[in-house]
Amino acid sequence: MLNKYLNNVRQKRPLVHNITNYVTVNDCANILLACGGAPIMSDDSEEVEEITGICGGLNINIGTLNKRTIPAMILAGKKSNELGHPVVLDPVGAGASSLRTSTAYKLMEEVQFDVIRGNISEIKTLADGTGTTKGVDADMADSVTGENIKSVVNFAKAFAAKIKSIVAITGAIDIVADADKAYCIYNGHPMMSSVTGTGCQLSALVAAYVVANPDNKLEAVAAAVCAMGVCGEIAYDRLSEFDGNASYGKYIIDAIYHLDGETLDTKAKYKVM
Amino acid sequence: MLNKYLNNVRQKRPLVHNITNYVTVNDCANILLACGGAPIMSDDSEEVEEITGICGGLNINIGTLNKRTIPAMILAGKKSNELGHPVVLDPVGAGASSLRTSTAYKLMEEVQFDVIRGNISEIKTLADGTGTTKGVDADMADSVTGENIKSVVNFAKAFAAKIKSIVAITGAIDIVADADKAYCIYNGHPMMSSVTGTGCQLSALVAAYVVANPDNKLEAVAAAVCAMGVCGEIAYDRLSEFDGNASYGKYIIDAIYHLDGETLDTKAKYKVM
Amino acid sequence: MLNKYLNNVRQKRPLVHNITNYVTVNDCANILLACGGAPIMSDDSEEVEEITGICGGLNINIGTLNKRTIPAMILAGKKSNELGHPVVLDPVGAGASSLRTSTAYKLMEEVQFDVIRGNISEIKTLADGTGTTKGVDADMADSVTGENIKSVVNFAKAFAAKIKSIVAITGAIDIVADADKAYCIYNGHPMMSSVTGTGCQLSALVAAYVVANPDNKLEAVAAAVCAMGVCGEIAYDRLSEFDGNASYGKYIIDAIYHLDGETLDTKAKYKVM
Repeated sequence: MLNKYLNNVRQKRPLVHNITNYVTVNDCANILLACGGAPIMSDDSEEVEEITGICGGLNINIGTLNKRTIPAMILAGKKSNELGHPVVLDPVGAGASSLRTSTAYKLMEEVQFDVIRGNISEIKTLADGTGTTKGVDADMADSVTGENIKSVVNFAKAFAAKIKSIVAITGAIDIVADADKAYCIYNGHPMMSSVTGTGCQLSALVAAYVVANPDNKLEAVAAAVCAMGVCGEIAYDRLSEFDGNASYGKYIIDAIYHLDGETLDTKAKYKVM
Repeated sequence: MLNKYLNNVRQKRPLVHNITNYVTVNDCANILLACGGAPIMSDDSEEVEEITGICGGLNINIGTLNKRTIPAMILAGKKSNELGHPVVLDPVGAGASSLRTSTAYKLMEEVQFDVIRGNISEIKTLADGTGTTKGVDADMADSVTGENIKSVVNFAKAFAAKIKSIVAITGAIDIVADADKAYCIYNGHPMMSSVTGTGCQLSALVAAYVVANPDNKLEAVAAAVCAMGVCGEIAYDRLSEFDGNASYGKYIIDAIYHLDGETLDTKAKYKVM
Repeated sequence: MLNKYLNNVRQKRPLVHNITNYVTVNDCANILLACGGAPIMSDDSEEVEEITGICGGLNINIGTLNKRTIPAMILAGKKSNELGHPVVLDPVGAGASSLRTSTAYKLMEEVQFDVIRGNISEIKTLADGTGTTKGVDADMADSVTGENIKSVVNFAKAFAAKIKSIVAITGAIDIVADADKAYCIYNGHPMMSSVTGTGCQLSALVAAYVVANPDNKLEAVAAAVCAMGVCGEIAYDRLSEFDGNASYGKYIIDAIYHLDGETLDTKAKYKVM
């Protein structure tokens, strides 16, 4: 039952430091407020260590990556590690450019992440760079389906073991895995991919859930991923005939604002593998 | 009666130059359009003096502060001072990092602000740095309540006198003070704190009101603060059962768009001290 | 009939690389998703060539211009030219500062644009710098009206011929011209000017339409401009008594999400000159 992880977020109101892109940053701030947490956005090397020090956790997102903020990401990540604060990585676009791929590798070398959340293609890029893909079934395509789910779960567990981190691969089916255990999550709606930044928002949400549930991080990530998917469904049901992707995006955050533990437990669809 | 300050904004359509953070900037632009003004966002040292020259006033906000834009803030502020344009400071996060605190001090040294708007903790940080807090009652906590309001008002007046600026301390109760007179404002709704950037938006709104009312700046700031609070109430009344903080944020701007002087006067709740 | 240009966007799902301002970037991303395309935002010199290489076209917008991203704009523009990808320029604020004006000139020198979209004042600034305005009727004011439309069309055609680019001048009446032919478009609603970034969004939309219609670029731009205007009308009709500019902005994107070719053809109002 996932309700307690949600309730811990509402009770502890985790403050999350975000170093993130300028495209979806407003929605990341609002989803953190919606879930019961609070956001601080700060990306200058001169202040990120102090800022991360007053927060409970850190969310690093490499969308609209630029060379000015890479050192800030590393400084903040190392400081969070030192303080024992959870750190989440969203490797937006890893694989799409050398800068993003090499920065993701560099971040993984310098910082111990508690959770890495991306789509299958981004996560495979990270795994390639760390030599984990050897032995991955050749049938592991660029989306997770009923047919290849076992091989993706095995891949996710192996990668999680290698990097000592929780790995969340999100898509039509979401996989949340550590070395030993994986949640396969079947919530969400295809229209979520028509809203910019639902992935970025989920990473911010994951950070809040992990900060509030330090002793059950895997379950906390699974709960956050279920919460996002459930709210994608609730928001979809609310659409009027004129509502499109812009309103839908706001309704997803609205649904996170109202989500309670009972609804989460009723609507969450997952199995453990 | 505050209606004339609102009406002046609608008639004069003040153009406001904003050097602000990338989290809430879109909402700042839209609230300026909603109130009848217009926004320009520009933060490069090479152009800020020219841009501020074609505007009526300047709004400096230190959220997502970075070293690149600090010189631009100072250049634009000095130029606005030279031209006699009103300048507003929103010291987001002053006290949360040395960079923010020292930048806020530096800005106050280099630029004469017409209005400084922040929460009680930010304003206290600024006052500490300028040596104003001596004599502030020890009971002045980090929120303004019915019980400590007198001491906060005295603090705000003293700080305003010291820095020759209007001081707006916003929270559950808002204080808008110059050296001699303070408005204590009781509008707003607690849910406003669940929307990212309502403070940033208010600072932009304050800038528009002050530009449009150069001979009644204190009243103009009070009117802007009342307007924001009243619109927080109107937007709250409009919420459907599914609307959360994301929709609420849009509804507040919508309410500013429709607000007229009569509604402002009917709903504004304040006393002068 | 414009429906085929819209349908090509929905079928081909063009991926558009945007180097744009941080004010309206989220809405640009969402309108690209709404029309059936997809966005990537990336502005660091180190990666823009690679990113533009995996996209179908490039949209350069100089709002919140800063010196860091100007070289990235040039690199990405040159690379797109090399690859034969369409490139759109939105010269936001050209004429408002030397930095913006000279950067717009520089970009036009270094990059061959397929489309330049701006308001009349921005486009006149660009034309001044390229010596095209000689012979422009003295009655060409800063807005396009029924009375001066012929002179604006002549100006647009001459400028388009000079720079070998499609020129889109948007306002109450929109002109989309190449050297030989101009579309005068009468869609839209005055309230669109109360929403920040409708121009930026249109430039992103134009990019998607041109990428999806390489053999009919002029018609594609006209279709995109009609689509935006039609959606401004549809969104306006949807407004409830409480909806203001913030909700209106979301409704415009929602309308783009739902727009089909038949509705576009039914509602588009233009003449060819």
